[in-house]
Amino acid sequence: MNRIAIGLHYDGAAFSGWQSQPHRNTVQDHLEDAIERFAGVRLLTTVAGRTDAGVHALGQVIHLDTTLNRDKFSWVRGVNAFLPPSIALQWALPVNEDFHARFLAFERMYYYALYTGPHRVPLAHGRAGYLMLPPGQRLDVDAMRDASRCLLGEHDFSSFRAAECQAKSPVKTMYDVTLKADGNWVFVRFRASAFLHHMVRNLMGCLVAVGRGRYPPEWLAGVLAGRSRRLAAPTFMPDGLYLADVKYPEAFQIPAADPSASLFHGVFPHDAA
Amino acid sequence: MNRIAIGLHYDGAAFSGWQSQPHRNTVQDHLEDAIERFAGVRLLTTVAGRTDAGVHALGQVIHLDTTLNRDKFSWVRGVNAFLPPSIALQWALPVNEDFHARFLAFERMYYYALYTGPHRVPLAHGRAGYLMLPPGQRLDVDAMRDASRCLLGEHDFSSFRAAECQAKSPVKTMYDVTLKADGNWVFVRFRASAFLHHMVRNLMGCLVAVGRGRYPPEWLAGVLAGRSRRLAAPTFMPDGLYLADVKYPEAFQIPAADPSASLFHGVFPHDAA
Repeated sequence: MNRIAIGLHYDGAAFSGWQSQPHRNTVQDHLEDAIERFAGVRLLTTVAGRTDAGVHALGQVIHLDTTLNRDKFSWVRGVNAFLPPSIALQWALPVNEDFHARFLAFERMYYYALYTGPHRVPLAHGRAGYLMLPPGQRLDVDAMRDASRCLLGEHDFSSFRAAECQAKSPVKTMYDVTLKADGNWVFVRFRASAFLHHMVRNLMGCLVAVGRGRYPPEWLAGVLAGRSRRLAAPTFMPDGLYLADVKYPEAFQIPAADPSASLFHGVFPHDAA
Repeated sequence: MNRIAIGLHYDGAAFSGWQSQPHRNTVQDHLEDAIERFAGVRLLTTVAGRTDAGVHALGQVIHLDTTLNRDKFSWVRGVNAFLPPSIALQWALPVNEDFHARFLAFERMYYYALYTGPHRVPLAHGRAGYLMLPPGQRLDVDAMRDASRCLLGEHDFSSFRAAECQAKSPVKTMYDVTLKADGNWVFVRFRASAFLHHMVRNLMGCLVAVGRGRYPPEWLAGVLAGRSRRLAAPTFMPDGLYLADVKYPEAFQIPAADPSASLFHGVFPHDAA
């Protein structure tokens, strides 16, 4: 048996999230169908991050076990030939059987791209969150940045956790939250040990509430400390959310996500973090 | 009668180009339907640039004549309410009846976004041109830039003109061609008095041929001088092409396109040109 690790990108707009479902319009279903057509047998995949409906991936990682012997490039080209344009493998790598796409990931990185303005912009539809603001009005990104500082370090993130969350513990470590404003855009990058279900979208809802002046920056520390979902702002839309990278112990030599393989190459140009 | 100028964006991937057609799946058909629902009467539109199937707009301009008296913001919000997510007005402005969206435009700007690499990237599907290159291989952007210099100034661009082109003259003035390389991406910005049918896509086909080393940079000057479509490379795909701005005499006070209203905000950040 050979264990293969695979990196993939997808545009989540057309799918009901990662996880296989009876109606079959999920990334996992399309991917496992394509792998079956390439490999001739059904192979089950294990994923690093089970993304929600509408959430994109620029650095998703999976693993699978197979008796098939094909070179790395054949895996990528072969499976891609059977995938819709909205999903594509980027690399494949034989790994030691100790590798596990979910349990060994020690850091995940997400981007959130948010467009604000009086009118929606079609070319960001499905690829960015949208917040209607009157002409001339912008989010207070300095206030959002001040608010975000309380998130750094190890915390119980229950206030930002969806009811359906299956994580064993709500305690995670946030390594970094970086906000960049550029014209009508706000880009946010989150790096943490792991994320609870809806955690980034719930954090975005809170940061946007601060950016609009509905709450002062200090409010967020109180929400975090309260450990209750009822304290936080509504879950923000999935459209602007991208799973951008997953990190594993160096021994496995899993390729880092290539930020130049996305339109975010210019926003977070040196994602060496 | 009031003449109204309107700026709009669209994702061209889903449409058979600008121009109205019997099957009605064009940007003009969707727009005129939405205007009819807002205004209660059918109003015909005149456009600055008739984009091809698959070509996007970040700075398209149209005008129309109407007896309707509504404020600028109502036009934009009202018509947008009846448009699909892939088309959206950005501004509307009452203008003098001398204004003409096509005949008075004295400069057009196009972007071309090109992704190169061994595997396609789903989040650029329909939004960028794609060129399959083996791992580690990239286009020679310096050679492409050298080649592009011959295009500057007034020339007969017949070598880059589609057979169906309806322009009165093949003589146009190219003001600027700017190329930027960033990781696997190449971005090209063209500014000219006007463009012939398929001109940017034919120029991109030639620049890519130079970037791959199929021809030396000097080859392009010969193609231009030959004034024959048979000399140029094949027409490049429309997916990466964006009509980014149209300029009019200052007296009309037409708003400049806002580059921050697109994901190109970081690529060509100061499009003050």
